[in-house]
Amino acid sequence: MSRVGIIGIGHTRFGRRGDATVQELAFEAYREALVDADLDPALIEATVIGAVPEYHKQRSVAGVIQEYLSLTPRPTWLTEAACASGSAAIRSGWLAIKAGVHDVVAVIGCQKMTELETAEILALMGRVGDVQWESVFGTTFPGYYAMFTRCHMHEFGTTEEQLAQVAVKNHHYGARNAKAMFQKEITAAKALDSDSVAAPLKVYDCCANADGAACVILAGEAAARRLGGARTVWLDGMGCASDSMSVLRRGDLTGLPAAREAAAQAYRMAGVEAADVKVAEVHDCFTIAEIMAYEDLGFCDRGEGGAFIADQQSYLAGTTPVNLDGGLKAKGHPIGATGVSMTCEMVSQLRGDCGERQVLGADIALTHNVGGIGQYCFVHVLRRD
Amino acid sequence: MSRVGIIGIGHTRFGRRGDATVQELAFEAYREALVDADLDPALIEATVIGAVPEYHKQRSVAGVIQEYLSLTPRPTWLTEAACASGSAAIRSGWLAIKAGVHDVVAVIGCQKMTELETAEILALMGRVGDVQWESVFGTTFPGYYAMFTRCHMHEFGTTEEQLAQVAVKNHHYGARNAKAMFQKEITAAKALDSDSVAAPLKVYDCCANADGAACVILAGEAAARRLGGARTVWLDGMGCASDSMSVLRRGDLTGLPAAREAAAQAYRMAGVEAADVKVAEVHDCFTIAEIMAYEDLGFCDRGEGGAFIADQQSYLAGTTPVNLDGGLKAKGHPIGATGVSMTCEMVSQLRGDCGERQVLGADIALTHNVGGIGQYCFVHVLRRD
Repeated sequence: MSRVGIIGIGHTRFGRRGDATVQELAFEAYREALVDADLDPALIEATVIGAVPEYHKQRSVAGVIQEYLSLTPRPTWLTEAACASGSAAIRSGWLAIKAGVHDVVAVIGCQKMTELETAEILALMGRVGDVQWESVFGTTFPGYYAMFTRCHMHEFGTTEEQLAQVAVKNHHYGARNAKAMFQKEITAAKALDSDSVAAPLKVYDCCANADGAACVILAGEAAARRLGGARTVWLDGMGCASDSMSVLRRGDLTGLPAAREAAAQAYRMAGVEAADVKVAEVHDCFTIAEIMAYEDLGFCDRGEGGAFIADQQSYLAGTTPVNLDGGLKAKGHPIGATGVSMTCEMVSQLRGDCGERQVLGADIALTHNVGGIGQYCFVHVLRRD
Repeated sequence: MSRVGIIGIGHTRFGRRGDATVQELAFEAYREALVDADLDPALIEATVIGAVPEYHKQRSVAGVIQEYLSLTPRPTWLTEAACASGSAAIRSGWLAIKAGVHDVVAVIGCQKMTELETAEILALMGRVGDVQWESVFGTTFPGYYAMFTRCHMHEFGTTEEQLAQVAVKNHHYGARNAKAMFQKEITAAKALDSDSVAAPLKVYDCCANADGAACVILAGEAAARRLGGARTVWLDGMGCASDSMSVLRRGDLTGLPAAREAAAQAYRMAGVEAADVKVAEVHDCFTIAEIMAYEDLGFCDRGEGGAFIADQQSYLAGTTPVNLDGGLKAKGHPIGATGVSMTCEMVSQLRGDCGERQVLGADIALTHNVGGIGQYCFVHVLRRD
């Protein structure tokens, strides 16, 4: 089975980007990826855009981006899977290359969220849950994840202090990432003392809406060896799974079945186990989501996620370092960009380019990108030979 | 190069479907496709949804559909390319199979547009044009296509009577399609006498917003031969191209360069020429769009589109019969469903199942699905062995 490699990465600063339209953000990431890969743009055969269309004034953004990148009339399309749209786009680009239809594809995740008001975003996001039976009664995303939190606390004794420790870790590393939205350390006391959003979740348990873009350039095995050389990072395990969009119809709210299924697929395809993963990016849209991810991905046993962060096992020196770029929490969460951003960070780690945040000897990395309340999950295993 | 076959098709009635949610529409089409293929749903490995997310109250529809179809935890994702989202989804499913990652994939195009007011839809659609320089000044889709019409008239002498004849033809065939929104013949006089929408386009030059869904089940070559037998229709030529979203930046408004490019790709891949196409479905969002499609696809020379319809060359008995199901004009245009609907119709034609609308001996068919004002175009060539 032929492999697909990542030969270039690019990433904008995340945050409030009133200085750039969505196509300008996409260009910023794309240009950096071309420079990183030292690639002639004539070799880009197609683009896949990861974005959620309705957060932009400009609709149908794949078209406007393709033109702004001077890539017309080449193929482009957009892939949407809520907050996992970036990983869905990577999967789509990976499929195009494995199919032998394209040899070099640029995948761009992008989102410009701050054009909308926060209340408007909250209402839109609520409609990513079940509209017929839930959002109509006022559910929002913090509300959904507060339910997960309550269940995890009830079932396993997880504490607000443990949640706060996730935020402390991610701000600790965000402070060391020049592209993060919040480059500032926080204390557990500050997190615990922050305003309630949806009890027991507080301000510092929630990631922030942001603007930003990230790009990876994918190539077929032979092209990757030729163009990317030894710096190539391989997409060796690709998992994708779905689940009910309704909390009413979930058997259990202490984890995400789609994440477990996607992880099982990715581990199997890559021929690795959780213990082989040297560094990971997980979808910490809320602190509880990171704790559930530790368990769903097998970094620790079920119910042990709270202790895993309390013991600092997801820090740089721990058993499985997680979100060393600050995660969604501190880096910001421009929803379509996030999955591609995670991938860029894992490529940097596998190349050994992360400086003080570098996991020494990292050869296998993982991304975990969740859409909605887990109705989609994409888990990708990356490897450096 | 291994082939991808279509082994099942399903199609809802198009029109105002206040009786069904978007997931119910998707199910209706999916169920019919399963029955058509006589297929065990356990064999469906993944779904791809073609839809434009923002026309539904329910966002992230792939998740809600996957659950409603009882297909969780299998992979699903949504593909968006404006009004060509259905064809983008077919391309995505085709890639997944050619990649050897999935063997049987259900592709569902669906849209429930009548939840929104027409004015709201017009404004949203305007934003599928360039927001920074055009829709902000009030451009809408009828306005864009009126500009194409004016240019075509100026350059080639195309007349309002010829436009009306496209509508007459498509209503003629729509009256013979039990799933069409408008099953009623019209006269040229009636079309010419209808109210102006964006001069010179009148009510009968415009297709109608609609609700509806369509489904095709794709399978890899061996699986298709086993499961679909001799009824299998093959996706042998797949073209996809992009262009500027801005009329300001188009060199010429008498045709769609992306359509010519996508057609060239599809003909090349299938090893056929325009003259080999026995029956086609083209994107007649406005009557002028069908006339331009005749030319862009090579069914007639440039500038000859008006004469092509005036001479009834796109009727059943003509050189290249077009839109024998009523087209977007009479069948209705639930945007995400349209590309898949076109494909269902071409499969029926290639199987010889179209009754009084049947093109005798049809062995090669084509679909032409346009996004926006031609910033995307997908052209697919289908063949029955």
